[in-house]
Amino acid sequence: MSYKDMLICKNLQINDKGHLCFAGIDTLELAKQYGTPTYFMDEDRIREMCNIYKSALEDAFKEKGRAIYASKAASFKQMYRIMKEEDMFCDVVSVGEIYTAIKAEFPPEKLYFHSNNKTDYDIEFAIKNNVGFFVIDNTEELLAIDRIAEKLNKQPQIIIRVTPGIDTHTFEAVATGKVDSKFGFAIETGAADEITKLALSLKNIKFMGFHCHVGSQLFDSDVYIRSAEIMLNYIIHVRDDFGFSASMLDLGGGYGVRYLETDPTIDIYENIITVGKYVKDFCEKNNLELMQISFEPGRSIVADAGLTLYTVGNVKKIPGFINYVSCDGGMADNVRFAMYEAPYTVLPAGDMLKNGDMKSSIVGRCCESGDVIQPDVLMPSDIKRGDIVAVCTTGAYNYSMASNYNRLPKPQVVMIRNGKTYVAVKGETLDDLIDCDI
Amino acid sequence: MSYKDMLICKNLQINDKGHLCFAGIDTLELAKQYGTPTYFMDEDRIREMCNIYKSALEDAFKEKGRAIYASKAASFKQMYRIMKEEDMFCDVVSVGEIYTAIKAEFPPEKLYFHSNNKTDYDIEFAIKNNVGFFVIDNTEELLAIDRIAEKLNKQPQIIIRVTPGIDTHTFEAVATGKVDSKFGFAIETGAADEITKLALSLKNIKFMGFHCHVGSQLFDSDVYIRSAEIMLNYIIHVRDDFGFSASMLDLGGGYGVRYLETDPTIDIYENIITVGKYVKDFCEKNNLELMQISFEPGRSIVADAGLTLYTVGNVKKIPGFINYVSCDGGMADNVRFAMYEAPYTVLPAGDMLKNGDMKSSIVGRCCESGDVIQPDVLMPSDIKRGDIVAVCTTGAYNYSMASNYNRLPKPQVVMIRNGKTYVAVKGETLDDLIDCDI
Repeated sequence: MSYKDMLICKNLQINDKGHLCFAGIDTLELAKQYGTPTYFMDEDRIREMCNIYKSALEDAFKEKGRAIYASKAASFKQMYRIMKEEDMFCDVVSVGEIYTAIKAEFPPEKLYFHSNNKTDYDIEFAIKNNVGFFVIDNTEELLAIDRIAEKLNKQPQIIIRVTPGIDTHTFEAVATGKVDSKFGFAIETGAADEITKLALSLKNIKFMGFHCHVGSQLFDSDVYIRSAEIMLNYIIHVRDDFGFSASMLDLGGGYGVRYLETDPTIDIYENIITVGKYVKDFCEKNNLELMQISFEPGRSIVADAGLTLYTVGNVKKIPGFINYVSCDGGMADNVRFAMYEAPYTVLPAGDMLKNGDMKSSIVGRCCESGDVIQPDVLMPSDIKRGDIVAVCTTGAYNYSMASNYNRLPKPQVVMIRNGKTYVAVKGETLDDLIDCDI
Repeated sequence: MSYKDMLICKNLQINDKGHLCFAGIDTLELAKQYGTPTYFMDEDRIREMCNIYKSALEDAFKEKGRAIYASKAASFKQMYRIMKEEDMFCDVVSVGEIYTAIKAEFPPEKLYFHSNNKTDYDIEFAIKNNVGFFVIDNTEELLAIDRIAEKLNKQPQIIIRVTPGIDTHTFEAVATGKVDSKFGFAIETGAADEITKLALSLKNIKFMGFHCHVGSQLFDSDVYIRSAEIMLNYIIHVRDDFGFSASMLDLGGGYGVRYLETDPTIDIYENIITVGKYVKDFCEKNNLELMQISFEPGRSIVADAGLTLYTVGNVKKIPGFINYVSCDGGMADNVRFAMYEAPYTVLPAGDMLKNGDMKSSIVGRCCESGDVIQPDVLMPSDIKRGDIVAVCTTGAYNYSMASNYNRLPKPQVVMIRNGKTYVAVKGETLDDLIDCDI
């Protein structure tokens, strides 16, 4: 395998020094300027992905298409500023995300508030701050929203999260459209009907429609078409049996991104156009007025816009067993292999023209055997302390899941736009680590 | 199963109102006073466990016994103050832990600096701050220590981490004594000999002895005796073949704690006495002067001193499938089920005299299906929004592994001593969450 064949996103290139370039900049220069570990993010790629979604939704549904960034994938102030400039909506899952968005002057009326557990405090915070939509996950919170809205003399908009009962064959931790999901209300058990009737009976909410989400890392449109079919049939049932015409249908997120060169590519634009054609045909055939259709991408907006650089601390060759390449980061800044055995492409940033002739386990610096960034990676056999390694596709669920395990400070996030770099999130200092300690 | 049978540590009791008490205090009172989620820690239990280790090591080895708290299990300033008062040594794994210890006025000469990846910055920081011992994990760092020590005109003490080649049959992520570990130097491959010879050749270090660690959650002394035997034989080999008499042997940590009522109990005192007898007999038989012997407990010092309280947000019963009880915390504050499928005892804090008649999955509030605190737990079938649930044995690797996933602030840590509570770590605020955001 040549490293040339592992450039899984177009923002990865090799320059004439044999160095890996990211977003047009030599990664050794990036490491020198910013130190390691550092999360780098390609802002041009983020904006490009927003535009793919927006243009597809506009071409498919005209003014009825809406793109919502699921911000839990990467949530910090600058991300919400970018989303504001790109005219995206955002999905938020906590008061913390709402607060971050507001502090970045993202318009709160363009926020969708998810979460399977909204406390009274959360609900009051969201209503007082004019959050646009509540995505209703359970009965208790719907009743709490109605009660708190009455107290505040407001009438928040809600959509109800329905589980269409699809097992997407993605792995269990992120398969969320099944009947037995912790999220939302299953159609087939009658739970969706019950909450719909309850919502229709409440005076202090505006009931706008339905939401579903069938999984993550999906590479084809079939599952979206199947869930759209189920949801549209459900909307007809609600119209015919309960007299309620849904004006919004949120089809969730989940388009896959490439972590490895063996992962398929997906044409998200064409995929959404295909789903759009299906939805419009269905509505026409069934005499259903087209409602507003939204998609809620998170990972696919930011994942391959991210790259993490580490410095090698040591190389431990245990003949007949394994080779370890230890880096100055690990499960504290990227927990996804430790948590999900998630695949990643790892590249020797300064030696991209060499052969990867040494099978290696790229491990982190945490005092734990499970602190593996990626096993079974091919590295040049002369890789040594001080060399830089790059882990690709780290833009989603890396910074957002980072911990201070082993009392490691969270790395900075550096954005790259038009070949220029700037710090979007400062790295934590030693004093930040003890800031809450008495 | 009655909840009375699930009181897995003596600091758990049921009062006459049927409420769970922790460290002598009604947990509903704790939840009312401090809110949820909150980590509570029983300081008396922490000190008791320190004393069990110290008295066992003193009785087994007199002044040659040494107890070292592996602080990555729970690292914040107040923990180091407690360890200082208890006259414990501490093991640290990063500059962040060293800094926290120093800021708590823990004496740095009583720190052992672990980590499989010490950067030049880390090494310089540790030497300048007079950290007592470096535990050497790899060749590169030993050379760096010697070089940096020369520059600083210091001579730091080192012990070498050796992997004795024992597979402890604990699960893979925490089994660290095998030959193919990322940590240390294997005896059987010759790596331990090589690093020993190198250490003996360096002028700017004081070579004190050896360290090993064979795993975690161990419930019997056999594995310690086996690793002590291997290490003592290795020390004889080093004495006879290289002319070096080791003055320190650190046998690591790993005694198990009870997460479930089905877990065994272990008499740590008796266990260490048994190991001590073996070590002393071995030394006598082999004409080896007894060196300083240390144990390095982390989890067993703090785990069952911890309890987390959550408030239920909703109960979702999906007939024929599963029941969900959603809490206001989850994988952000306790990642251990999501990461390792770690077992926990979960109790209905206000209903300890009821029957647990509803099999439930206790899930968190993160927007992720894998956010499970514990599956297959028995809860009273009338559990509802607003009820308090307690998760036991959360003192180790909960706060220390906490993330801000879903932009959730880290909960506070409240200590309990002699029936009085005080805040040891403040909970993060919304402003803390955006503190590093530009």
